[in-house]
Amino acid sequence: MLKHICSPTCTHGVSPEDEKDVKEEFKVARRSFLRDAMVASGTAVSASALSVSMTPSAFAASAKPGSGMTSHYYIPASANTVLWGYFSKSAKPVVTVESGDFVTIETLTHHANDDAERMVRGDAGAESVFHWDSTKKGVNRRGAGPMDAKVGAGGGQGVHICTGPVHIKGAEAGDILEVRIIDVTPRPSANPLYKGRAFGSNAAANWGFHYGDTLTEPKKREVVTIYEVDATGERNWARAVYNYKWTPQTDPFGVVHPTIDYPGVPVNHSTITKNDKILQNIRIPVRPHFGTMGVAPAEADMVTSIPPNYTGGNIDNWRIGKGATVYYPVAVPGAMFSVGDPHASQGDSELCGTAIECSLTGTFQLILHKKASLPGTPLAELNYPLLETQDDWVLHGFSYANYLAELGPDAQNAIYSKSSVDLALRDAYHKMRHFLMTTQRLGEDEAISLMSIAVDFGITQVVDGNWGVHAVVKKSIFPARGV
Amino acid sequence: MLKHICSPTCTHGVSPEDEKDVKEEFKVARRSFLRDAMVASGTAVSASALSVSMTPSAFAASAKPGSGMTSHYYIPASANTVLWGYFSKSAKPVVTVESGDFVTIETLTHHANDDAERMVRGDAGAESVFHWDSTKKGVNRRGAGPMDAKVGAGGGQGVHICTGPVHIKGAEAGDILEVRIIDVTPRPSANPLYKGRAFGSNAAANWGFHYGDTLTEPKKREVVTIYEVDATGERNWARAVYNYKWTPQTDPFGVVHPTIDYPGVPVNHSTITKNDKILQNIRIPVRPHFGTMGVAPAEADMVTSIPPNYTGGNIDNWRIGKGATVYYPVAVPGAMFSVGDPHASQGDSELCGTAIECSLTGTFQLILHKKASLPGTPLAELNYPLLETQDDWVLHGFSYANYLAELGPDAQNAIYSKSSVDLALRDAYHKMRHFLMTTQRLGEDEAISLMSIAVDFGITQVVDGNWGVHAVVKKSIFPARGV
Repeated sequence: MLKHICSPTCTHGVSPEDEKDVKEEFKVARRSFLRDAMVASGTAVSASALSVSMTPSAFAASAKPGSGMTSHYYIPASANTVLWGYFSKSAKPVVTVESGDFVTIETLTHHANDDAERMVRGDAGAESVFHWDSTKKGVNRRGAGPMDAKVGAGGGQGVHICTGPVHIKGAEAGDILEVRIIDVTPRPSANPLYKGRAFGSNAAANWGFHYGDTLTEPKKREVVTIYEVDATGERNWARAVYNYKWTPQTDPFGVVHPTIDYPGVPVNHSTITKNDKILQNIRIPVRPHFGTMGVAPAEADMVTSIPPNYTGGNIDNWRIGKGATVYYPVAVPGAMFSVGDPHASQGDSELCGTAIECSLTGTFQLILHKKASLPGTPLAELNYPLLETQDDWVLHGFSYANYLAELGPDAQNAIYSKSSVDLALRDAYHKMRHFLMTTQRLGEDEAISLMSIAVDFGITQVVDGNWGVHAVVKKSIFPARGV
Repeated sequence: MLKHICSPTCTHGVSPEDEKDVKEEFKVARRSFLRDAMVASGTAVSASALSVSMTPSAFAASAKPGSGMTSHYYIPASANTVLWGYFSKSAKPVVTVESGDFVTIETLTHHANDDAERMVRGDAGAESVFHWDSTKKGVNRRGAGPMDAKVGAGGGQGVHICTGPVHIKGAEAGDILEVRIIDVTPRPSANPLYKGRAFGSNAAANWGFHYGDTLTEPKKREVVTIYEVDATGERNWARAVYNYKWTPQTDPFGVVHPTIDYPGVPVNHSTITKNDKILQNIRIPVRPHFGTMGVAPAEADMVTSIPPNYTGGNIDNWRIGKGATVYYPVAVPGAMFSVGDPHASQGDSELCGTAIECSLTGTFQLILHKKASLPGTPLAELNYPLLETQDDWVLHGFSYANYLAELGPDAQNAIYSKSSVDLALRDAYHKMRHFLMTTQRLGEDEAISLMSIAVDFGITQVVDGNWGVHAVVKKSIFPARGV
């Protein structure tokens, strides 16, 4: 499905054949947990919510589907459809959808300007976002910080280009938003020189776990590696193209960036030295996913996109890809869903600070579960982002489960000096215990034993301020519901 | 192969058919890394080392195979063939083997006395090890501590029953010992009441990550859960049988054990309350493996079996099972290999303190790589236990890479208050960087980028004093050698 990647000006409809594909693809991709659960608990999902009837893709067209119909919206990435570096409960939605609707969303990597020739040039959407001349930027605010910050508007306190927000009609605090990832495709380079290829950037950056702890000098160097991904989908691996050491970059407003301290600074390639004999013959398995995806938190009006939190955000788990579903606790009216930080591949820990940061387009189905319908279902009491893949439940622990509430008014700055993997493991333990005790109705001693013999705890990331540990448990170990 | 599990008194030989199976099984189980590597580096493994010709299994019979022959030894578990709770470079070897020989080794879980009816009774080997009456114990020393320790001889400073040591002829410090795990089978209950079944114990113990951090009272409880494993190999899952809270146990010498503070204390089942309606219908995937396996360290004569170290030991990684190979740096003459702490299943982190502790029998091939042959091969400079599975390289980081050398004379006690996952991740980062730079000849910047996009860091265990983080990288990402 979605063999054709729409451009921002694309107005064609989705064909009836593709409609069918959408439904089939997801059904095959994984067994549906929630549908079973809802049926088991007596709250049948209405037939209308499961039937898919697409309206013509229409950016921000407030389609008013009739009863029994769902809509399919298309949100291109452009200067008008993104928030750069923050979540905001009060941002103007780019589209308002009903529960059950589909949304195809373009996302841009905030590292595209590391090689603008390959990742920006000729791409109208990316050009509108990354535009920056001596008088203005396509998107001025980058981050939740002050607009007069020396480094640039928004202070770079938050870096991810998040497309959205999408307002889900009727969503309120206490509800759960289910996000099904139907499809993920790379965004091809729009530069004719690189036809059929897509590119990503990996920055071994100053916030990386390795920074300052290197064998060779200078120990505090930042290195950008450009990777190539096959945009046609024929190859399931990426390869390195070249790398370079970051050199101080002067942005079009005249501010010098000695390190990667502000997102989207155009890298002047005449100031860098490219090494192209790197990682020769090495094939990186591709794991396309969204590093940052979630709903707006309630605790502040404008929240940096960097530390993940109870509402999701920058979880940076490579398992959040095609066929996966994430359940988020809704914290504000409309939920205000947005997505960004697309990755072609990442390892658990995201050690050097970034993944292969590579623009992607995703198709999502958004399903709202109202608070009143939750008791007795596995989503009751869910207060963190829960991931379901084909085979596993994946729970996300953080050093601070809700750092905005726990660390006080300066939380968005304070979090960076307070995280540890040990704390994140503690939180993941608490969450997995709760999950087993509520959704599987186990006693505490049963849950603790099971965690030691059948749950795998891994390091999600140690580079996002609020560090993460995920806990993975196989769905197959649990008895069929109702048995 | 090895459909028949030998008993300690078993003297029959391995049939020619089984010989062939041994070779085939391992060949199919994974691609051989080292053979390729050795050939590539010009150091061909001699044809004789690859040809397998078994002599009759003979415990401690110093077979003297002729040129081109390898031997197959059988080491039953008994009071005379185990060290309980420690590694020792000066212990008397139970057998001396040549490089390339096969050894089938019985291992006993030190938790068998949690349910002696199921895991000890009628089993001559286990009975000889666990024997304990008012006058004597089958194995008196349990741990590397003082013999007059109040809690019992050896102080429980080390708890695992390790079968061995096996002396490898010609092994010296600086060499590498390759241990191929050819087969792993559960040890069936010898009690006729439980024919065809095997059992294991999971103790949510005072050294667990959860201890004192529970929802229900008493927060500092210890809970033992008994699991059943199918000994016939027909089922690939385990199920819980019952659990009980640990109550103070008086050992046959009259010492009271208020907690699990000494290994092998017989649990008097008249003092406990069994709950048998637990984990109903839940199927735990079986992952048989050896929690503790390694060679003797050089730093002390007697070293507790609990914290893992550069020589391996209690790594507690469930990937160390059938088809896997571990490479250990040899630290003392003869290498002094031993194995114990058998597990039917464990999750990454081993959160509550133990796995499904279940007696197993393993067949291993031991191959010595002399120091002089290492330069130019992937094993050059290897100073930690390296695991190879069918698909992956798995490197083991610890809070302290060599805690015995780093923490001074009191290291064996001091380690328990000094570990963190963060430190173990730091060590795993250093080791993976070294691995990529030496075995794959990458520059530091290439290695660091690759680690962030293609290496998964997971939490091995947080309950063994010296905490562990493993780094997993797929073998398939690397180009074929010589290309």
